[in-house]
Amino acid sequence: MSDAYSQAGVNIAAGNRATALMKDAIKSTYGAEVLSETGSFGGLFSAQALTAMDAPVLVASTDGVGTKTMVAAKMGKWDTIGQDLVNHCVNDILVQGAKPLFFLDYIASSSLVPEQIAAVVGGCATACKAIGVALLGGETAEMPGVYQSGELDLVGTIIGVVDKANLIDGSRIQSGDVILSLPSTGLHTNGFSLARKVLADFDWTQARDDLGGASIGEALLAIHRCYLPEVNALRTAQIDIHGLAHITGGGVLDNLPRILPEGLGAIIRRNTWSMPPIFKLIQEQGDISDLDMFHAFNMGLGMLVIVPAAHSARIIESTTIENGTIVGEIVAGHDGVDLQ
Amino acid sequence: MSDAYSQAGVNIAAGNRATALMKDAIKSTYGAEVLSETGSFGGLFSAQALTAMDAPVLVASTDGVGTKTMVAAKMGKWDTIGQDLVNHCVNDILVQGAKPLFFLDYIASSSLVPEQIAAVVGGCATACKAIGVALLGGETAEMPGVYQSGELDLVGTIIGVVDKANLIDGSRIQSGDVILSLPSTGLHTNGFSLARKVLADFDWTQARDDLGGASIGEALLAIHRCYLPEVNALRTAQIDIHGLAHITGGGVLDNLPRILPEGLGAIIRRNTWSMPPIFKLIQEQGDISDLDMFHAFNMGLGMLVIVPAAHSARIIESTTIENGTIVGEIVAGHDGVDLQ
Repeated sequence: MSDAYSQAGVNIAAGNRATALMKDAIKSTYGAEVLSETGSFGGLFSAQALTAMDAPVLVASTDGVGTKTMVAAKMGKWDTIGQDLVNHCVNDILVQGAKPLFFLDYIASSSLVPEQIAAVVGGCATACKAIGVALLGGETAEMPGVYQSGELDLVGTIIGVVDKANLIDGSRIQSGDVILSLPSTGLHTNGFSLARKVLADFDWTQARDDLGGASIGEALLAIHRCYLPEVNALRTAQIDIHGLAHITGGGVLDNLPRILPEGLGAIIRRNTWSMPPIFKLIQEQGDISDLDMFHAFNMGLGMLVIVPAAHSARIIESTTIENGTIVGEIVAGHDGVDLQ
Repeated sequence: MSDAYSQAGVNIAAGNRATALMKDAIKSTYGAEVLSETGSFGGLFSAQALTAMDAPVLVASTDGVGTKTMVAAKMGKWDTIGQDLVNHCVNDILVQGAKPLFFLDYIASSSLVPEQIAAVVGGCATACKAIGVALLGGETAEMPGVYQSGELDLVGTIIGVVDKANLIDGSRIQSGDVILSLPSTGLHTNGFSLARKVLADFDWTQARDDLGGASIGEALLAIHRCYLPEVNALRTAQIDIHGLAHITGGGVLDNLPRILPEGLGAIIRRNTWSMPPIFKLIQEQGDISDLDMFHAFNMGLGMLVIVPAAHSARIIESTTIENGTIVGEIVAGHDGVDLQ
């Protein structure tokens, strides 16, 4: 470790200690495809399986968890935002039909706390391991002067693959298709700047009846759900998935139209799904309009699955799709989402 | 745009405007392999070429540019740090022999300035286009409360591929091999916290004789060099590359030993290469020891290439390897790097 460097506020030893703490968690996500050790220049992932595909397409996405990191900092709870990040990224490429292969993370703060970094990366590893994704690489950076003291940012990149014929792009969506919602657990990773502002003056640690006994901090940190198991179950049940929309920033109003063919819109029927109670609390305390709520938050709609109406009975019968609900349908003749 | 959201300090319109500004630059990096439009959930990249390889291995790396972002902020110059980031990432996987395929970026700040974000992403696009890499995806995030006002962080992820038989891992390095240095342009993306501290009281905009007429700001922002063309030229000249070390954080003292087989060390001979003058200024002003300098900075050694001694004459004759210099050799019987 360089003394001169340490005097400039960069603690290389802390970085090395963080790396040592998280090494085992990272290695636990390695399958036979991972050809590199932790700490090599780049992570190596065998793409041998792709050579058996007709037309393999790599699908990639980078994202963060927004100011959910500030909730983690306020609550001193660092083991879940890594899970949020992985699940968010996996859902983002799942909507195109991709099977996730590997994930990379980046964590930066003004001052590295090794145990904190290890908890965040441990969360990433937990979520990766649960769905067979390799945590192939990552970086930690100490940037005094860029980050506010005590805060951090967390960035993830997911790489997946899909055979071109199986790409989902919404082009087969038709009028009359039904919209199945797979429920969210809460805010997931969007709307935190608004939620934090509205709820700033509350006690975030007290159990609340209106949150089913959870505290505000617990409700806000509810882990972003990964929909890979549910979508795999739909595929196994031979449901013909016409489209998938991950409801993130901009809510259902912005995200559902992104996959609808021109000339088609959607009707979403209020009160057909159960909404996590945190949204009611935010709306009441912030005196926020319905429209603004649906623009800023997922409102309980985590992942929307568009399927032929003829398949809806089979979906509802399926016991594997926990709490999935038909919340609306595709209609011709208007654009966008009509909330009824 | 949600009014409620805007009041919480998140400007969705600014994000959309930044996206519009950089769309053309991003699209200019697309080759036939890119199957997605800008703004889709995940970027799509055809991996058809991989199916013709015997044993394709994907190589991935995530990194940032450290507090070089603070120099960009201080100088108000945003069009080069994106190039730094891409070139840094490309070099990181190049050392394993990988050809870069596509890149993703993430930019976050307390408050989005669309023109600033567009300049940063434009820099990423410039560097990607120069070497035929697709800028496949990216994310911008506004995180008031996490970032210091006026600062930003910039994170990149590169994905490349190498046929397994062509992986470079240093295992073939032998005693007697020579070390070729491809020169750096300056600090590249490491050592900025220390450099900024040492040089804080200087005028960063004044032309200086001791920097060859450049200002401190210009010298610090010199763009991280991409070594892909040089390494490709070595391959074309049928130089047998035994190892490659990208000299980043930790300098030559930490990075070269990472690729040396057990029982082998390296001698690096001072005064065999020309060092960018910014390092002399930093060392003198900070009264920093030689050892600390070589630990914190690349000191002019950008990329080290380990080749058989029998090939060294051919390298020196090659006119394609601009300013490449033999700086030392591999020796048996001691670990680490011996600076002579």
